[in-house]
Amino acid sequence: MHTTVGIIGGGPSGLLLARLLHNAGIDSVVLERRDRAYVEQRQRAGILEQATVDVLRAAGAGERLDREGMPHDGIELRYGGRAHRVDFPALTGGRRVWVYAQTEVVKDLVALQLADGGPLYFEAEVHAVEGVTASDRAEDRPVIRYTHEGREKTLTCDYVVGCDGFHGVTRGMLPEGVRTTYERTYPYSWLGILADAPPVYDELIYAHSERGFALASMRSESVSRLYLQVPNGTDPADWSDGRIWDELDARFALDANPEWRLKRGTVTSKAVLPMRSHVTEPMRYGRVFLAGDAAHIVPPTGAKGLNLAVADVIVLARAFAHLKDTGSTGLLDAYSDTCLRRVWRAEHFSYFMTTTLHADPEQSPFETRLQLSQLDRIATSEHAAAELAENYTGLPLAQ
Amino acid sequence: MHTTVGIIGGGPSGLLLARLLHNAGIDSVVLERRDRAYVEQRQRAGILEQATVDVLRAAGAGERLDREGMPHDGIELRYGGRAHRVDFPALTGGRRVWVYAQTEVVKDLVALQLADGGPLYFEAEVHAVEGVTASDRAEDRPVIRYTHEGREKTLTCDYVVGCDGFHGVTRGMLPEGVRTTYERTYPYSWLGILADAPPVYDELIYAHSERGFALASMRSESVSRLYLQVPNGTDPADWSDGRIWDELDARFALDANPEWRLKRGTVTSKAVLPMRSHVTEPMRYGRVFLAGDAAHIVPPTGAKGLNLAVADVIVLARAFAHLKDTGSTGLLDAYSDTCLRRVWRAEHFSYFMTTTLHADPEQSPFETRLQLSQLDRIATSEHAAAELAENYTGLPLAQ
Repeated sequence: MHTTVGIIGGGPSGLLLARLLHNAGIDSVVLERRDRAYVEQRQRAGILEQATVDVLRAAGAGERLDREGMPHDGIELRYGGRAHRVDFPALTGGRRVWVYAQTEVVKDLVALQLADGGPLYFEAEVHAVEGVTASDRAEDRPVIRYTHEGREKTLTCDYVVGCDGFHGVTRGMLPEGVRTTYERTYPYSWLGILADAPPVYDELIYAHSERGFALASMRSESVSRLYLQVPNGTDPADWSDGRIWDELDARFALDANPEWRLKRGTVTSKAVLPMRSHVTEPMRYGRVFLAGDAAHIVPPTGAKGLNLAVADVIVLARAFAHLKDTGSTGLLDAYSDTCLRRVWRAEHFSYFMTTTLHADPEQSPFETRLQLSQLDRIATSEHAAAELAENYTGLPLAQ
Repeated sequence: MHTTVGIIGGGPSGLLLARLLHNAGIDSVVLERRDRAYVEQRQRAGILEQATVDVLRAAGAGERLDREGMPHDGIELRYGGRAHRVDFPALTGGRRVWVYAQTEVVKDLVALQLADGGPLYFEAEVHAVEGVTASDRAEDRPVIRYTHEGREKTLTCDYVVGCDGFHGVTRGMLPEGVRTTYERTYPYSWLGILADAPPVYDELIYAHSERGFALASMRSESVSRLYLQVPNGTDPADWSDGRIWDELDARFALDANPEWRLKRGTVTSKAVLPMRSHVTEPMRYGRVFLAGDAAHIVPPTGAKGLNLAVADVIVLARAFAHLKDTGSTGLLDAYSDTCLRRVWRAEHFSYFMTTTLHADPEQSPFETRLQLSQLDRIATSEHAAAELAENYTGLPLAQ
């Protein structure tokens, strides 16, 4: 089998890229290692930037998002027993975000692709990609070798895009001497829960507390998504439902409203998520491109991971369309540099949000006071608030 | 001898406080441990915020400052071989800073005080302050015991203000159980030089480089003030003049203008300055108030130290005038809280400038890229630039 773009990984970036290419009249094949049910169930991010919503709508994947997604015009910061709302449209000239889970985006894109798109193979495990060099000669086209339905198969393609995440195979195709990696791990994790409990808040609440960070999010009007900072290596089994709710209430406590409590409900999912920053440079080697988590990881505090992956594939889809229309590889050649500017901005913002809101176990009282001073500054300075709002709602896409 | 306000320390904060009190018709005595020549010679900061200039002018100490001070409408950031100017008036609604050395401010204030002010005693060493408690009873007035002209003397006063710096005696009057200290030391120092060389730049240049931070400042049209980040424990004797100039040129290097060089000249002073953050809370205990470096230290990167001291004494002078006019200690009682909000903002800004621009010897490549991303953001986002400009030119004084 031959295709123009071989896409390894059927998460949101691989699926959206396939859709954008399809709409541009470019053929692709998506190879996803897991089965469809797994891909459609895994819990990931839940906040979509304006630009992400715009591209999903333009791609024809916005129908259910428009019906079920919840637009949010701000977030609440809680610190030192106080609450402060950051108003996104007022600070950014009208930008907002949407609460719509990544897993729902995936379902929508899978349905579209299966209905009228190019091949999307589940349980298709890639073993090797051959013919990958930095050369642009036509005879150096890559061959993807994979197993599907119990048989060894090959896919030849003009280009390979690795949308297979941090643990995927594509990143490893960049030779050691070419690849530079940048990393940071954080001395804390998140305990994330889903609960059948109506959120008592309209917008996300980011809480700084001496007990550690907490985040109140939501999946729907009846399902809450809540997070607690916990030590690395925490076993979710050590956190009973009662302990989780008590700790959440303690971290969200308000001096002016000591009766404020979360509404409790059955905890239906409980998992510990590590916090990591990672960037692989460059994001292109020869005919292989990396997109999304295959190239970069951010800690989830700034809600950037999914949106950054979407930005990558928008740039890539435009570059492939440009090649088709003009015969020029100019935009493909610029792909890595174009994306990395945005990636590093998001890495910095995610680091800023993470280190401003979490309690590092080694942090000094001086550093805690600096965090509170920074949060106070956001609450009192339009520029500091706008800097947060612009980064949170997402910077404009590079052309 | 009795006075209303006994001021320990004749640096800029003690001298300015005495002047402001004098202008408000409140008597004070200043006790300075060193001799006049020493006080008028020691090299310290050189950047005055708008509000500092305003108060010096209003206090009658602005004449020479207006003649010799150099107004600056911005700073230049250099990083990654590029230069970016931050335009202060455009970003802050007209605020700027002045280059006028602290040592010149001190000379002006000493001359004024000796001409028509209250007593200002040099070589007056304070041994003890008695009668300091948290009480407000009239009989609990403090007594300052000091040596002057070879004799033991006492000064009774209604209030004591400690303007005697980080190593002074006043801070120790806050009992252990009352005092909380917050500290951070940095894993680098500054090698600061004065040189008889005309600055080839119009405004200060703050340089981020993989070789470490550098800062180009000035004292006049013929005297440069230059700083290099060096390891803690550096002996200035290890830095020949030639090595200093070479290293400065390397750190200020511009890709677009590889011929750019500092103008070299005789190095007339060479000293290593440690970098430290420190806050003592509260800034008041009973009838004793702390002002300036006695209560807080910032690393010099944000040029906040002198300006923060001036802000303290403005608040304090207003509070004493309020007491005189109304009999109310309300503003005195609010002094510590009023100042500490500004102090923590300045501590955060100074930390931000320091950690964004310096090369921590333990820093990872990831952290270096975050620094560059932050600097790029300042160069491309009005909000990020304005946040720097507002903090650098100084926040409005609290009432």
